[in-house]
Parts: sequence; structure tokens; C-alpha cells
Amino acid sequence: MAEGSGRRVTYANFSTIDFMHDFAKERIRLKRLREHGTWLANLFDASQAWLVVAFVGVATGILAVFIALVEEWLADLKVGYCRDYWYLNRKFCCWMQEEEACSTWVLWGDVVTGNDDPLSVGPQFANATLATLVRRTEPHHEPATTGSFLAAYIVYMAMATLFAFLAAFMCKHLAPYAAGSGIPEVKTILGGFIMRKFLGGWTLIVKTIGLPLATASGMSVGKEGPFVHLACCVGNIFPRLFTKFAKNEAKKREILSAAAAAGVSCAFGAPIGGVLFSLEEVSYYFPYKTMLRSFFSAMMAAVTLQVLNPYRTGKLVLFQVTYTKSWHSFELLFFMLLGALGGLFGAFFIRLNLWVSTLRKHTWIRRHPVQEACTIALVTALISYVNVYLRAGSDKLVGSLFRACPSTTTLDPDAFLDDMHEDLCAREKLAATAGLLLIAAAAKIALTIVTFGTRVPCGIFIPTMCIGACVGRVLGMAVAAMARGFPTFFLFAACAPDEECITLGPYALLGAAAFLAGVTRMTVSLVVIMFEITGALTYVLPIMITVMVAKFVGDAFGHESIYDGLIRLNGYPFLDAKAEYIQAVHAGEVMTVTSDLAVIPAAGWTLADCETLVREDAHMGYPVVESAKSMVLVGFINRTELVYAHEQARKRPDANDMTPVIFGPVPSAASAATSPVLGNLSSFGVVAAHAASGHVPVLDLAPWMDQTPITIVARYPMEMTIELFKKMGLRYVLITRNGQLLEEGGD
Amino acid sequence: MAEGSGRRVTYANFSTIDFMHDFAKERIRLKRLREHGTWLANLFDASQAWLVVAFVGVATGILAVFIALVEEWLADLKVGYCRDYWYLNRKFCCWMQEEEACSTWVLWGDVVTGNDDPLSVGPQFANATLATLVRRTEPHHEPATTGSFLAAYIVYMAMATLFAFLAAFMCKHLAPYAAGSGIPEVKTILGGFIMRKFLGGWTLIVKTIGLPLATASGMSVGKEGPFVHLACCVGNIFPRLFTKFAKNEAKKREILSAAAAAGVSCAFGAPIGGVLFSLEEVSYYFPYKTMLRSFFSAMMAAVTLQVLNPYRTGKLVLFQVTYTKSWHSFELLFFMLLGALGGLFGAFFIRLNLWVSTLRKHTWIRRHPVQEACTIALVTALISYVNVYLRAGSDKLVGSLFRACPSTTTLDPDAFLDDMHEDLCAREKLAATAGLLLIAAAAKIALTIVTFGTRVPCGIFIPTMCIGACVGRVLGMAVAAMARGFPTFFLFAACAPDEECITLGPYALLGAAAFLAGVTRMTVSLVVIMFEITGALTYVLPIMITVMVAKFVGDAFGHESIYDGLIRLNGYPFLDAKAEYIQAVHAGEVMTVTSDLAVIPAAGWTLADCETLVREDAHMGYPVVESAKSMVLVGFINRTELVYAHEQARKRPDANDMTPVIFGPVPSAASAATSPVLGNLSSFGVVAAHAASGHVPVLDLAPWMDQTPITIVARYPMEMTIELFKKMGLRYVLITRNGQLLEEGGD
Repeated sequence: MAEGSGRRVTYANFSTIDFMHDFAKERIRLKRLREHGTWLANLFDASQAWLVVAFVGVATGILAVFIALVEEWLADLKVGYCRDYWYLNRKFCCWMQEEEACSTWVLWGDVVTGNDDPLSVGPQFANATLATLVRRTEPHHEPATTGSFLAAYIVYMAMATLFAFLAAFMCKHLAPYAAGSGIPEVKTILGGFIMRKFLGGWTLIVKTIGLPLATASGMSVGKEGPFVHLACCVGNIFPRLFTKFAKNEAKKREILSAAAAAGVSCAFGAPIGGVLFSLEEVSYYFPYKTMLRSFFSAMMAAVTLQVLNPYRTGKLVLFQVTYTKSWHSFELLFFMLLGALGGLFGAFFIRLNLWVSTLRKHTWIRRHPVQEACTIALVTALISYVNVYLRAGSDKLVGSLFRACPSTTTLDPDAFLDDMHEDLCAREKLAATAGLLLIAAAAKIALTIVTFGTRVPCGIFIPTMCIGACVGRVLGMAVAAMARGFPTFFLFAACAPDEECITLGPYALLGAAAFLAGVTRMTVSLVVIMFEITGALTYVLPIMITVMVAKFVGDAFGHESIYDGLIRLNGYPFLDAKAEYIQAVHAGEVMTVTSDLAVIPAAGWTLADCETLVREDAHMGYPVVESAKSMVLVGFINRTELVYAHEQARKRPDANDMTPVIFGPVPSAASAATSPVLGNLSSFGVVAAHAASGHVPVLDLAPWMDQTPITIVARYPMEMTIELFKKMGLRYVLITRNGQLLEEGGD
Repeated sequence: MAEGSGRRVTYANFSTIDFMHDFAKERIRLKRLREHGTWLANLFDASQAWLVVAFVGVATGILAVFIALVEEWLADLKVGYCRDYWYLNRKFCCWMQEEEACSTWVLWGDVVTGNDDPLSVGPQFANATLATLVRRTEPHHEPATTGSFLAAYIVYMAMATLFAFLAAFMCKHLAPYAAGSGIPEVKTILGGFIMRKFLGGWTLIVKTIGLPLATASGMSVGKEGPFVHLACCVGNIFPRLFTKFAKNEAKKREILSAAAAAGVSCAFGAPIGGVLFSLEEVSYYFPYKTMLRSFFSAMMAAVTLQVLNPYRTGKLVLFQVTYTKSWHSFELLFFMLLGALGGLFGAFFIRLNLWVSTLRKHTWIRRHPVQEACTIALVTALISYVNVYLRAGSDKLVGSLFRACPSTTTLDPDAFLDDMHEDLCAREKLAATAGLLLIAAAAKIALTIVTFGTRVPCGIFIPTMCIGACVGRVLGMAVAAMARGFPTFFLFAACAPDEECITLGPYALLGAAAFLAGVTRMTVSLVVIMFEITGALTYVLPIMITVMVAKFVGDAFGHESIYDGLIRLNGYPFLDAKAEYIQAVHAGEVMTVTSDLAVIPAAGWTLADCETLVREDAHMGYPVVESAKSMVLVGFINRTELVYAHEQARKRPDANDMTPVIFGPVPSAASAATSPVLGNLSSFGVVAAHAASGHVPVLDLAPWMDQTPITIVARYPMEMTIELFKKMGLRYVLITRNGQLLEEGGD
């Protein structure tokens, strides 16, 4: 009767797993395999985890490519369509053509107003304000007339609302778990919580389709958080093929940690950042082996992305930059200011967003998620269309903001990334650009606060980066203007007199890092991600400093990251491994006393007794003692196992209400010792009957019981008890005195 | 009588600490401070750790600058000296002068032969072979005559030997712990081992002076490993000012983890790499808080380095490269080949180096470390002088090897980093260069195997990188030659016909990464370090793949890194947190049985009894039981505390051999209960006497005892017991049955 052999059929939904016993189960399995399996079976077993994480990486990479292509196509569809091949996005539709003179791409504005030649320039606008607006909004594809502008505007809004409707409708009716970022839940699940369907197939499908819809709708949502969720879905579904993972929740979580790394790897093209994100942000239990597997999984995801090359740039990363000049020492002052701004923004954002989320949860909005999403998308489109920076899409905007301007001596238009980048560098309209950027940032802040948490797939990374990049770039423009205006001011003494002193790109980059640090409170992983997606080697130190300042300032207003806040708001059980608990009490003072918690005697009870207990008592498990009088501890049985074992026993014809229930050959249970044992339950989930004739059959539950529970004494300090729970992944400890279960607390 | 209040005066040398109780002690201190301290005292207490790690970072940065400058000066001194200012190295001596025409820098060869004008070119060499050699060795500062060449050669060797002699002599006579890399010991110390003086002031001073001597001697040693040791010395000495760290070994280790990060940060200019190195490679206990502090410490170190700017390049990193072209898919094949070579080399190197180390330890060499170092330095100088790549110094060679060659269309000499770089790119002498590089690699391998472990400060990072870079570059040259020779071969189909297909620099970079991965078995931290010191963004993926392959191949020949091997060789107690243990036994089967391990009864013994026990029994601690008959467990007392408490008690005039020793008010110790208590020892380390007149005084040792030891049952699985030890940092668990200490093992 090996301990653990029959234990842990399955966990109930919304329960927490017992890492310790899942690992013990795995070790028992491994020991058996080493003793009895062939070398081939052993080799296959050892390589399973590597196979699984490699597959998860590749699958996540393919998903990422699919989503990227669909998203780009949908986003372009808001503006026009490809005349020859409807399934092509603008870039591929205009492939090999001049961007300005692409005749195969038709704008909706022209279709609606019947203007079939997209390149003709119509009569001037009747309204001067509108004309200015249009020229600003559509610097190159200037629509023909006021009518066509308005038509394009309306189609744009309608499309955005339609996409949001589809995304929200799917989420509401097909897979409610597909909504949101998913990171708080993934964190909770990795911490040992069971949430069925959260990482299921429907969630995966709906989120894969809903995510490009949501992002293409123009709402202020990112796709990076959801990618982690998607990768974890893959990491949850695929290992079901292998019993090793299917039957062991703790082992499954090792794969999920690796999957989270693959998700970030795909989202940003940052494989190392992914590993560190998994380590720092989402994983609970992260042994060295899991780090290696995360590394491998993230690598495979990045290779897949590189090979498929969806953007046709040959580049893995999102925002590669090259800063030719390094920073001056005095700039550190402004970098730290950016850090402080980021920290403040984070604290402010977390509070407001959680307030909105609470509102959403407790008011009538809760029942109308589709309408809510549509409204937000409509308002977002309404605002975004008339601000060229908002309209460009966050990815593109961030890319342009991160870019340094070409040095003034070479004003070659090819030196610019695109028109927007040229716009951002144009010194003659500095104030207008700064104003537009600030408006964009303010609008984005307001929109992101209400959008993050809507019942569509939505991430927080890119919107936050976008806000930070706008603010940072404006600060950089201000500093540059100061340096030009007051070259003799002591701060700017280090500037060379004849060239531009301040590089604007890094300010945007540092702003993005600072704001992200404020909201997510990430540190090392954030620095690595920012470094990896830009390659800004000379700015690693400023990034570190800015992130550190943002973290400090943010923490001054509360230690919670947005994810921790959402975990708390949703009431998920999560013991934060990062927090330190200082308690003035002993374990004995907070324990559940036995007058509340029923105990089961190792012998003397019947099947009916146990069933009554389970029916009337809601605790997750019960200590087993020699007898209610001696209270000498024998073990601990979980409610789930107890219920399961009884259900199995009830299927036997010879079992009835009076069948005795024992827990192993307890010496004091002398009467039961001679009876035959009904089920030794040694094989998994099967009750083997040995009902000898003439005797009363007995149900032995010892194999279902934790025979070696961790026990502590009552005066064991509470903090150390918490450490035990955190580090060993325990679900219960029993408090004993001299081997007896303590009946009352106190010291 | 608060538990823990009087415990843990100090640990004995070469003992292991009890993390759990050190943290408990810290929490008791914190609780008191929160209850009784002012807000200012609390604030100061909270900021102490940050202050300390910031200081450690800055101090390490300053040390790094000092060492870099001294090393450069010494290395130049082997070749010549500055005529006007003897304390200047060649670079500063020739500052603002043309490198080729620097008249203030005098070569030893010219001094010895009386040729005072360093720029005159003497008559041709008599011997043709020697002339070729000289031209190869001294491509620019060609010495005047055969005589001056030989003179320079001899001075070079003499200087190298002198430096090695000084370094080894200092290490032998002043601080033996200053020798070696220090990383295995730092790892062991962070794991909880006590090694007095290893991180002490003398070690710091001697290593700070010995390190530049050793590296400047030209021996195949790096300074990166020793930097970690130096940083940890600073991190050990400085916190002594704060009682919080001085009196708590576990808290001190948190600072040491941060210091290790600062060390790597300075060694490579790679702050993030430092944090990850500390996390992955050296730290044992690395909570989130320590990660933040490591981050901060590494950042401060990098800022210091950047501000002091010792190399006057304004660049933080060692080997910044810019690869304009990305890699082709087919190259992955060669990258993986490099990875495999690295793994093989690692396995081979570890075995041979450990064999040499064993030889050194067990033969007569052990007694002659100075002679050994001198011999190695002499041989190294003899070999190195005649190979231009070896002679250049590892740092410079690696820097040149990592560089890509300028594209063939622009054969501007300014495009090259230096002459060596030009040499490496020259296609007309491809075979000669490759041959020389291979010779350099072979010599370096042989030299590193015997040098690493010599009794001078020596690291393994740079030598290994150097070997890997040579091999990688040669492979790259071979591939490039193939691509030129067989452009139609299917592999090279992706090459553009009119330009160079293969970039050589990355091959060197990947070779370095692969060989380092083979020797150290680092993964994530290595990739980050390689990425951070070069900024090669487009090659992150190849680096990851190469490192992964090297790790897999290396692990196939044994899982030990060079550091783990040295830990085993030196017999340090180290429970590898990365390893997984699968044992078929239960805890009860491996326990120390009570017939071997003495137990102390809670009442009934005298002072003399205890002292006899301590004298005759060498165990590190003893369980305390109610009585030898009942064996009911009361607690556990460490030998150190027992000895200390007795020494304190002996100082009391009223204490004698017959003074009863009790452990708390044990109910069964009825006779002792009425006696006055000699010392309640509630304040730290002070014995308070309450000897009431007429009664026999009693020594109560309860405050010195662990009153809440972790107990498990005999059938507790061994692997889970190991997990308890690893994760909770335990030093003992007690095996009980029903509250009684188990006297015999088995199940």
C-alpha cells in the first residue's frame, strides 16, 4: 500500500493544488519508470518536456504570425480595400508599387462618393476648419472632397464599431474567459489555482480571432498580454497528449511557465525578455529546469517568427533603433524626471482603472459588455481619426517616436522612417507637433483607463508604452528647445556648440519604459525587453535608472502592480511570493481549531458517517486521528479524495451505510484489523474488492490519505509558516503537540 | 523568554548557517523596531540595505577602474616605459601624439641595446627566420636589430615572470584566499557555508593588487571571476558597520548576492548580465527583494564606471560591435556546429583542468605555488611573444575578432579598428592568419588548462572567450572561403552574388559564447552578457541557439560546470539547488540514529555533564528531549550555542560543575521548577543572574534552544526532505513518531 499511489484523482474547479504532493507523485512515477521501464521509455519520458515546450513555442509563433496578418488586414480595411485581391492588406496590395501611387488600393471615401480614381484631387473643401483637419489627418492620401472625407470618417467609425462588436459578441457568447488580458489569471493559475476552461480550446480559438478584431478596431488595447494567455492555452492543451502532464497539475505548470515565455517572445520578438518576464512576473514556482525550458520555448517561438517573417522586414524586433550619439550626464536629470512621471502615472492609472473595473463589475454595465465595447470603439474612432498620431496605430506611432531624428546636416527625406517620423522631426512646427502629441497622450490615457478591462481581448503593454513615448518625446523636445534657446545655461555646458545636443528618440524610449514600469512594476525583465526590442545598447544604463526611479516612486503610492490589483479585485487566491509578511502572531493563534474542523478517527466510522461529514462540512480536507480521544495524528485526507473514494465504494454491491471505514492498519483499531479489506485502491482510481465470505467488508482509505503531512508546533512563528506555504507550495499544515493534533490554538 | 532571543551568537568557521533561524531572528528584530522604534529609526533601517548595495556598487566600480588602469600600465611596462612620466601607460604617454611616432614612449629593446631613437630602423637581421618572426610579431614598432629584438624578448619574459612572482608571493604569504577565481567559494558561501577571511580585508587588498599583476604578466587568466570575489569582499566588509547585517549571516548573504551582480557589472560593463549571473550562477537564496537590490547595485557600479571612464572611450561595454548584415538561415548549421564544438571543449576542458587541479593538490607542486606561477608565466611569455595574436592580450584580441570586416568596396584603412583587425580581414594572407589563430587557440587551451587554478588571482571567462573567438573566426573564414569557392553549392544559394556572403565577426562572437557555455554551463545570463557587451541585436537568436546546443552537448558528458567541479574537488558542502534528486529511500533510512547522536534531557543534567558531551561528541547540535526514557522532543540546541552559554555561565562565581542545566519549565522537571534561574539570557549574549539566596542556582538554556524545530515522520520521502533543506535553508530536521524522537531508523 504505497503512499500516494491512489491519491489525487483530480482537483475541483476553483481549488488550489498541492505542489508538494504533485511533485511527490511525479517522483514515484519516475522511480517506477527507472526501475521497470526500458531505456527507450526513459529517454522518451525525459525528452517529452522538451518536445512539448518546443511545440508550444512553434505553435505560438504560428499563432502570432496569423494574428499579425489578420490584424493588419483588418486595420487597413477600415480605410479601404484591395481592388484585385480582397484578402490582401494595403502593403501587399501595393507591393512593388509606389506607396503614393498605388492604384489597386481603393479608399472607402472614394467608393462612397463615387470617385473611382483615388489619385484625383477634388475641389477645395468648403469648410476651412475641416480642410485643416483633413490635411493634418490625411497628409498624403488627401480625399477628394468634403463629402468623401466625411464618408471615409463614417466608414472608419462603423468598421471600428463592427470589429469591436464581433470581438465582444464572441467573447460573451462563446468564451467569456477570452476577454481581458489574461495575465492576472495566468499568474493565479501558475500559483496553483485551478480554473477550468480558462486555458481551454474555446478560449484559444475565440481569443485568436477576437484579438486581431479588438486591436484592429483601433481601441486602446495591446496584443502583448493576450499573447501570454494564448501561449498558455497552447501550453495547456497540447500536453494533454502526455499522461505525465495531463495527470499532474504541478508538472503542467512547468510547461505553462515556458509557454508564458514563448508568448512574450512572440509578442515583442524578445526571447530573453520572455524568459525573464515569466520568471519575474508570472511564474510562482520557477526552478532552474523550468528556466532552461522557458529559454528553449522562447527560442523556438522566435525562430518560427523569424522564419515566417510576417512583416517581410527580416527583423525580429518591433522597434529597432540606432542611436549614433550617447547621452550627456546632465540628461540623467531629465531621465529621472521621466522615471518619476512614470511612477506617478502608474499609481494614478492603477487606481483609476481599478475604480472603473469595480464600477463595471457592480453596475448595469456588467450585463451589457457588447454595447460597452461598441461604445468605446466608436468613441475611440471618433477621436482617433482626427489626430494623425492616434490614427496611425500604436505600434507605428511608438516606432516613429523611438527613432532619433537624422542629423540636421543631412536633410535627406530618405533619412526618415516615414512621413510621421519626418513630421516629428520638423523643427518649424515644433509647438504644433508637441501639442498634438500631448493631446494624443491625454486621449490615450482616458481611453486606456476605460478600455483595459472591457470584455474583449485587451493588453496594457502597447497602450502604456505609447502614452509614455508621447510624454517622453515631448519632454525631449522641450529639453532640446531649451538647449537651443539657452546654450549658455550651466546644464548645457557639455553640449557641442554646432550640433544638436539632445537626441529625441531616447526620451520616447525612456518614457515608454518609465510608464510601463509604473503600471506593471516590472524591473529586470522590463529593462531586458526594452533593450531587446530596440537594441539601444548605449541607453541600457538610462533605461535601468529610469525604470528604478519609476518603480520607487510608484511603490511609494502602493506596492500593487495593475495585475496584482486585478487579482485582488477578482478575489483570486494568490499568495504573493514577492511580498514579505511580518506577523506578530504564532501559527497556533490563527489555526482552525478542531471544534470547527471535523476530524476523522482512523477506525470506528462507517461509510454513512463519512458521507454525512462531507455533506454537512465544507472544509477542503480533514485530519485523521487515531481516535477522537487520543487525537494522535495519523494523516490528512482531502475532501475530493474522500468523496471520490466513497463514490467508488458505493458502486460495490457489498457496500452499505454500515461498511466500516478505516485508515490503514492502525494498532488501536483492533476490531477492524481482522476484517478483510474492501478496497486497497492501490491502482489509480480503481477500487479492487477483496470481500471474503462471512466477514464484514471494510473500506481502507489509507492510500487516499496524506500519510506524511507537515506538522509544526503551535508556537511556530507565523512568518515562517507563510514561508513554508510559499516555498513548499503547501495547502495545509497541521499543528501538533507531542504527536497529538492540537485542539485549541493559542500558545 | 522569547524564542530565539538569545540564539545564534556566531557560527563556527567551516559550518553552515541556518537560513530559517537567521530570518526568524531578523523578523523578531523588525517586529521590535516597528513596535518600539521611531519612524526615523524605521526609515533608516529600511533604507540601510539600499545604502549598502549602492555603496558596494560604487566601491566595486572604483576598484574596477583602479585595477584597469594598473593593469594597463603594467602590461605596457613589459614592452617599454614612458620617458617623461614613468607612471603613465603607453596610451596616456602617447596622448595626442601619432601612435606610430610617439617619441616619449621608450621600448626596452632600444634601451638595452643603447639605441636611443625608437624610430630609427636598424640594419637587416642576420637570421632570416628570426626576421620573419620579428616582422610578424612587431608589425609596426619594428625593433632595430636582432640584438634589440632578443633584448626586448628577454625583458618581456623577465617582466612577466616578475609580475607572476609578485602576485603568487603575495597570495602565498599574505592572503591565500586571494588566489584563484573565487566563484566556487562565493557560491558555497552564498549557499550558507561559513569561511572566515575568505571575504576579508586582506583578501581584498591582496587580490586588488595581485589581479592586475597576474593579468599583466600575460598568463592566461581573466579578471572577471576575481571581480565577483572582490565585489563580495566589499559586500562583506562594508555591512559590518550595520548590526543588522553584521549579526545576521543570512541577511549578509542578501548583500553578497547584490555584490556579485555588481562584480560582473564592472567586469564586463554588463549590469543586467550581472543580475542574471548572480541569479543563475552564484546565488542560492534569491528572493525578489534581492533581485531588486542586485539590480540597483549593478546599476550603481555601471554608473561609476561610466562616470570615471577609465578607458577614455565613453563606452561602458568591452566589445561593442555593429553588424550591418543579418545572418542567412543556412548559417544556423555552422552556428550549431560551433555550439557543439563549445560543448565538447567544455567537457574536455573541465576534465583536464580538474585533473591538473587534483595533481596540483596532491603532489609536491602544492608546496611550491610561487615557483609554479613563475614557470607558467615564463612559458606563457615565451610562447606569446612570438605570436602576434597571443601577445596582443586577450581583451584586445577578442575585440578585434568580434569585429566584422569592412565591406570590400570600401578598403579605407580607417575602417579598421586597428592593425590586428586589418590583419584579420586581409584576404590575401587568409591561410597564414587562420594558421596563426589556430596556433594561438591551441596554445591558449594548453596554457589555460594548467593556469586556471594556479595560486594567483585568475578567472576563466576571458581566456575561454578568447579560445572560442579564435576557433569561431577560423570556422567563419573557412565558411567564407567555401562560399567564395563554391558559390553554386546549394547551401550558398541565399548569398548575393556580388558581395561578401559571410560576416566573420559573429562567428567569433558565437564561438566565444559557445565555449563559455561549455565551460560554465550558463544559459540565460550568458546570452544576456554576450548581448550586452556587444549590442549585437540581430544575433540574439543565433547566440541563444549556439548556447543551447553547447549546453546540451556539454551536459551529455556530465552535468558539472567548472565551478561545480571545483566545489566537489575542494569538498565544499554545497547542496545544488539546480540538481534534482531522485531517491528510493525514506528519511528514516538515512537519519542519524540516537545511539550515535547524543540527546540532552530537558532537566537532570549538570554543567559538567554538558561540557563532557561537548568535549567527547563532535556533532553540530543535539536534540533536547523531556527525558531519555520518554524521548518526547522539546527542541534542538546547536553545539556553538551550547558551548557559548556554558562559557558565559562559567564566568559566574556561583556556577560550578554541579549547577543543574534545564531547558525551560519542563513539567516533568519538578525538582528544578522551584529553583531560581541563573540566567534567563533574554538579552543578547549577556547572562543575567538571579541567584536567590539559599537555593541552588539553575542554568536555563531554553532561550538558546530552537524551540520549534521542523519535524517529519520516518516515512517522509527523501526527495521531499531534500526539498525542505534546499528551499527552507534548513540544517537539520528531526524525525519523530507521535512527538517522540525516533531512536532507530527504517520505516
